[in-house]
Amino acid sequence: MPKTVDHEERRRQIAEAAARVAASRGLRAASMREVAAEAGVSLRLVQYYFDSKEDLLRGVLKHLGGRIAARVARGVESLPRPAGPREVLYAALTALIPVDEDSHRVVLAYTAHHTLTLTEPHLAPEGLAYANALLDFLAERFREAREAGQLAVDEDPRTSASVALALVTGLQSAVLAGRHSGPTAVALLTAHLDRLFSPVPR
Amino acid sequence: MPKTVDHEERRRQIAEAAARVAASRGLRAASMREVAAEAGVSLRLVQYYFDSKEDLLRGVLKHLGGRIAARVARGVESLPRPAGPREVLYAALTALIPVDEDSHRVVLAYTAHHTLTLTEPHLAPEGLAYANALLDFLAERFREAREAGQLAVDEDPRTSASVALALVTGLQSAVLAGRHSGPTAVALLTAHLDRLFSPVPR
Repeated sequence: MPKTVDHEERRRQIAEAAARVAASRGLRAASMREVAAEAGVSLRLVQYYFDSKEDLLRGVLKHLGGRIAARVARGVESLPRPAGPREVLYAALTALIPVDEDSHRVVLAYTAHHTLTLTEPHLAPEGLAYANALLDFLAERFREAREAGQLAVDEDPRTSASVALALVTGLQSAVLAGRHSGPTAVALLTAHLDRLFSPVPR
Repeated sequence: MPKTVDHEERRRQIAEAAARVAASRGLRAASMREVAAEAGVSLRLVQYYFDSKEDLLRGVLKHLGGRIAARVARGVESLPRPAGPREVLYAALTALIPVDEDSHRVVLAYTAHHTLTLTEPHLAPEGLAYANALLDFLAERFREAREAGQLAVDEDPRTSASVALALVTGLQSAVLAGRHSGPTAVALLTAHLDRLFSPVPR
């Protein structure tokens, strides 16, 4: 019996190739033809899975959001059990900083595609889904941390989560721009969280 | 006598038109021809001032960095004198958040051009100059605030400045993506600074 084509796997393979082209040569180079060449498939196959350049961009953004979410999940799962909300927050947020070649490439491609959606709003919905889910997750952990007495009682969990997520977004950008190394960005994130969790009286 | 052409003004006019095209229709639409049409000048004139699309992108990035730096300077200058380091920090950082149509457009165009430099590193130097100067300025104000006893003594000024700048970058991105309104982003920034300046003992 012939092997059934795994459509999800094919889409993933093409999206991954598109991310590679975007990260190495820029979004402007990521034409359907270039993506097909990078993926080692025909242009027609790319067109079968993605109707248009816009459809491909949406697909890549969704794929990369999934890749980043998986990094966060792995970071949290690798913690010794039982893990408290504070440890989960450090692990989840740290997992968002590019510290190796793969995370650098994924975050760079995500940033490039996401930025494109800012000026081409018809691409936007896919770009927000991942960040919104993450914000909810972080806010819930901050709420647990506050209930466990690890956070000042006047600290609003949703504010803490929004600030932490914005900080990580900015740190990602600083690492991609070469302003900070990955480890320095992790140290800055840690300094922020330490300050939040252990307010020092003057 | 014929009026001498103000070359700086011409460059500024073209860069501003390019930023408008990028902010309204996306960087992909910002061809030399489209920019010329938007600026109301000939394609040849654009080519006279900017040798190539890359040269134009560099010019736009530098122009927008200057626009943003000017917003920061205006924010600081509008403070009642004498202004302390703490007030200067709030004013400078708040001025970076898009809160009206003009700042939204400038920050959006800057972000789009800056992101392009991430995958096209030959464009990068112009993109970093503005952020590096701002980081130095912020670190100096945090140092002054610490010396004035407004900040915990164990707070490293450069760390505070790097965290604040990364946070603002992330908040800009969140406003552009429609995740936060401008006022909400300002409130989040204020909450972060309040926490830094007034550590609450638990």
